[in-house]
Amino acid sequence: MEKRTELYRGKAKTVFTTDDPERLILHFRNDTSAFDGEKVEQLERKGMINNKFNNFIMAKLEAAGVATQIDRVLSDTDTLVKRLDMIPVECVVRNFAAGSLVRRLGVEEGKELTPPTFELFLKNDALHDPMINESHAVAFGWASAEQLGTMKQLTFKVNDVLKQLFADAGMLLVDFKLEFGVDADGNIVLGDEFSPDGCRLWDKETRKKLDKDRFRQGLGGVVEAYEEVAQRLGVQL
Amino acid sequence: MEKRTELYRGKAKTVFTTDDPERLILHFRNDTSAFDGEKVEQLERKGMINNKFNNFIMAKLEAAGVATQIDRVLSDTDTLVKRLDMIPVECVVRNFAAGSLVRRLGVEEGKELTPPTFELFLKNDALHDPMINESHAVAFGWASAEQLGTMKQLTFKVNDVLKQLFADAGMLLVDFKLEFGVDADGNIVLGDEFSPDGCRLWDKETRKKLDKDRFRQGLGGVVEAYEEVAQRLGVQL
Repeated sequence: MEKRTELYRGKAKTVFTTDDPERLILHFRNDTSAFDGEKVEQLERKGMINNKFNNFIMAKLEAAGVATQIDRVLSDTDTLVKRLDMIPVECVVRNFAAGSLVRRLGVEEGKELTPPTFELFLKNDALHDPMINESHAVAFGWASAEQLGTMKQLTFKVNDVLKQLFADAGMLLVDFKLEFGVDADGNIVLGDEFSPDGCRLWDKETRKKLDKDRFRQGLGGVVEAYEEVAQRLGVQL
Repeated sequence: MEKRTELYRGKAKTVFTTDDPERLILHFRNDTSAFDGEKVEQLERKGMINNKFNNFIMAKLEAAGVATQIDRVLSDTDTLVKRLDMIPVECVVRNFAAGSLVRRLGVEEGKELTPPTFELFLKNDALHDPMINESHAVAFGWASAEQLGTMKQLTFKVNDVLKQLFADAGMLLVDFKLEFGVDADGNIVLGDEFSPDGCRLWDKETRKKLDKDRFRQGLGGVVEAYEEVAQRLGVQL
């Protein structure tokens, strides 16, 4: 399957059409961005790591009964996926307080959240991805109440599966972001990616950050941390 | 019933204890504030108007089956109320887009929202009353899921009653904010106030603003607008 035209260029991936109208190619780039794209750098090997990492995680989720858009890996940086009509709402589960939650609600970083929180954010760069709630999504037609209910249920299922997976490898899954789309049959399917670009992972003992916060906060060793996470999980790089 | 010690001084009301531990006095001041207290002015007669307005609205809500904290009017600016353990979460229903919703989500002011939106905000001046959702309130112990469910149901009931009341007087109820507390028996009771300080009201035909946006936006005629609303509803000033 070959890339045809560029459909969409995101901050870290480019999406291409193929000769099959129901299949797209996700191309993972080395671009690493933060703060709505204000800080951007090329990090060697990151595209390859995130592509393989994402395929590894998505396979675990498929095995647990979560439908994903993955078809098959095409190369180190490219994956063939089912075409979805993406819902412009990000789903976030937090098991520990970090990032925007700490700034917005004045909560101490690292506080365990019981029960975990569930948040929705509108995917809109110009508005800086504002937090929304279900009533906004319904009133403005971004998703139906039924779709949102399914997305919430699936996001918590992903949390159950991945919290355990990372715990078994000595890590805390602090928080993560998922994006869903609707397939040709109207089913809600997990799309986009799961990688250290879109979640927070801490070493269980030392709480060392092993995710994109190393880039955001200028801590260095970004790709090395991603590789460490992959190696601990048994992802073949 | 006499005022004893000052319990709490808000931006527009002061709460006093009384000799009855289960009763407090709400004293409505002329202070008018906006932008987290950055803009403050004294507007003659406003305390009296809001006290009478609030008692008029709360009586309508009681008659419709919504429990409120009102006991009885004591004077032009003072009302005796039941003591509640206030929940630090504001409930907002919006029938039309205005204010922070327009800024945050890039929506056109005046757009009718179908269905109306429902939002929660944390009452916290230092954090600028951030928007939260039910999972934050539960995780941080601000309210239980059951309390939040009751608060949401009551807020929509208030919307049904008041939308009609204002429509009959030629006005659109654009949005409003409610605060609830827990009484001695553990019931969720409507507290704080309902006045043009905490809602948006537009003339149905001209969409002239008849609420605190006149103060926020420096349009003048603030108290005159509040008096017009009261007069249209038949509130005795």
